[in-house]
Amino acid sequence: MNIVDLEFIKLISISSPSKIILMVLDGLGGLPKLETGKTELETASTPNLDKLATHGICGLIDPVSPGITPGSGPGHLALFGYDPVRFNIGRGVLEALGIDFNLQPGDVAARGNFCSVDKAGLVTDRRAGRISTEECARLCRLLDGAMIDNVRVLLSPVKEHRFIAVFRGEGLVHDVNDSDPQQLDVAPKAITALTPEANMMANVANQFVNRAKTILVEHHPANMLLLRGFSQRPQLPTMNEVYKLNPAVIASYPMYRGLAKLMGMEVLKTGSSVEAELATLKENYNNYDFFFLHVKGTDAAGEDGDFDRKVKVIEEVDNALTNITSLEPDVIVVTGDHSTPALLKSHSWHPVPILLHSKWCRRDEVKEFSESACINGGLGRFPATQIISLAMANALKLTKFGA
Amino acid sequence: MNIVDLEFIKLISISSPSKIILMVLDGLGGLPKLETGKTELETASTPNLDKLATHGICGLIDPVSPGITPGSGPGHLALFGYDPVRFNIGRGVLEALGIDFNLQPGDVAARGNFCSVDKAGLVTDRRAGRISTEECARLCRLLDGAMIDNVRVLLSPVKEHRFIAVFRGEGLVHDVNDSDPQQLDVAPKAITALTPEANMMANVANQFVNRAKTILVEHHPANMLLLRGFSQRPQLPTMNEVYKLNPAVIASYPMYRGLAKLMGMEVLKTGSSVEAELATLKENYNNYDFFFLHVKGTDAAGEDGDFDRKVKVIEEVDNALTNITSLEPDVIVVTGDHSTPALLKSHSWHPVPILLHSKWCRRDEVKEFSESACINGGLGRFPATQIISLAMANALKLTKFGA
Repeated sequence: MNIVDLEFIKLISISSPSKIILMVLDGLGGLPKLETGKTELETASTPNLDKLATHGICGLIDPVSPGITPGSGPGHLALFGYDPVRFNIGRGVLEALGIDFNLQPGDVAARGNFCSVDKAGLVTDRRAGRISTEECARLCRLLDGAMIDNVRVLLSPVKEHRFIAVFRGEGLVHDVNDSDPQQLDVAPKAITALTPEANMMANVANQFVNRAKTILVEHHPANMLLLRGFSQRPQLPTMNEVYKLNPAVIASYPMYRGLAKLMGMEVLKTGSSVEAELATLKENYNNYDFFFLHVKGTDAAGEDGDFDRKVKVIEEVDNALTNITSLEPDVIVVTGDHSTPALLKSHSWHPVPILLHSKWCRRDEVKEFSESACINGGLGRFPATQIISLAMANALKLTKFGA
Repeated sequence: MNIVDLEFIKLISISSPSKIILMVLDGLGGLPKLETGKTELETASTPNLDKLATHGICGLIDPVSPGITPGSGPGHLALFGYDPVRFNIGRGVLEALGIDFNLQPGDVAARGNFCSVDKAGLVTDRRAGRISTEECARLCRLLDGAMIDNVRVLLSPVKEHRFIAVFRGEGLVHDVNDSDPQQLDVAPKAITALTPEANMMANVANQFVNRAKTILVEHHPANMLLLRGFSQRPQLPTMNEVYKLNPAVIASYPMYRGLAKLMGMEVLKTGSSVEAELATLKENYNNYDFFFLHVKGTDAAGEDGDFDRKVKVIEEVDNALTNITSLEPDVIVVTGDHSTPALLKSHSWHPVPILLHSKWCRRDEVKEFSESACINGGLGRFPATQIISLAMANALKLTKFGA
């Protein structure tokens, strides 16, 4: 068994008072700066993480598999044992989660762009000159709430030209293609059903687009819209069903809260700093046995190509770490959902350092939490989907398999 | 996902001008000599490979899985991401590829042995005293070209007692058992269909064997023949379809060219030395974005049990390596399709060292290309089927998976 099977884990998981904290530094893994030969994590001064590594066991994880660069959805699903290829989450749903939109079962969500078209209807700017978020909100209000063939279309602004369109009604199926042609000087594509069941969805979506075209005609540069990534909320077995955990998420960014909610985690209200997140942890520590703490700053700095800022965020986390260790949880895991090297300014395929600290972890010789030190860690290199069973084992929450 | 799925990679692969060179030293991995404790690769002086390893990242690959000794077919399919268990290539087809026989879709190829039988028809020598290749060619000509029930039977000599029989006609299905009993003092087996669809194939093959028996009766020791490994050319998705690569093979041995052709690689004419192969690479460098370079000498020396010759071939490759590095390809991978330790005189199951060199590889601490040093490499130990996605990631030829 290489892919952790949820049904299998379900058979051997047990509920217990022991506590697990999984701290995810988004985009943690990096690449070395030419001048120093050190990555962001290797450059940062991290006495507390190094101490945890020294007393714990380390390794490297592959979120999907070697060479594959995961988006945030797959990266996070894998961390909680959900096969990210099997449970792929569509773009529309992810955007909806990202603005805390309360998606209902059956809703079909699409990511939208306001765009510019010329008189012939050909796309001249896929982002409508990046109109302001306020303008986007105003246009969304114009289009929001339409009823088309018993389907309600709900629009919510995201940022600048971006919005989501949510189709709510009976019998909608998300298997339709994008209207966004992803190129200029062509007309938006008609939305067509990829399966017979999705005919109604395609029909409603096309009616909506035509209606929007009429309404937007005088709102140049935002005189048209493009839709892509039609998708429905996947039905994931919850972490309580599979792992018998009572899990909570502490994340300042809505998308990660939304992803966690899909897996059945309780969302805890928190602030936007690492300190605020750790304060939330402390307050709620007695009420849950599994905490997912998400730190966004590492990824954001990596995406911006800001090596030094990423170093600083890691140091900030290290500083705050005593707030976790002082709680003396049974298991602490620190890792990332993927690498985001500042040098690449994007997510990447490189494996991510992981440390696991527990009384029963069988510590290795690694004394430093870094990409290069983790190569020789006792956990070796393994798929991220196996983290959760490893953490549960260390929390004595898995029983023996077989007699 | 541990076995890289071709359909999955297809979704995220993109075409780009970046270049990948995969150099395969056939049977590269070895076992240490008792006297020195060093393998062939560790004994060889390899300053250029060591330099690549120092600036690159290393690891160990398992062609099929730990403990499994692959033939040349599975070993090579895995290197290009094709699951070698799912896409098994039959013995007959492999032999045909090995003599550059132009197999047509639908052809059924079998590996043949001329053999000796006694008056009762029982096999007394499965190899007919290893008749000369010339004698084999003469006998093949006697039998070549027969038409049986609208099926043409084509015979081609291979080496000594070995030949191939290719059955060409409409509606042939390869699911029949061998006639070769693989033991002495029994009669050759009747060929029987394993599925109803293969009835015609079995019928034609038996008629052919009976005919051959009559013709060969006076040609002792080669007075009979045995057939095994009936198989048809598998329909593999091409590397262009899956990876959007424009790949070429440079190999002096026909079997490897044939295997590469099955995967859609363009075959480049080349000479028989490593230098000749590298000259071919240089000449054609601008025309392709992926090159598979195959070096046979390491495996041949290993099979012969010639430790020192294998060392010499590795040193020859190392010497010529600057011809690759001077081209400055985006990604260089050096590995083998399996181990062939001179001490075992055969293919083996031992994992094979691999090095990957690219701007984005995240170099490790390995400073020497060897079995023991690669154990601590940053790539860890992984299935050979993942090499190609890793190489493509490093060439920035894979987009992000999921939003």
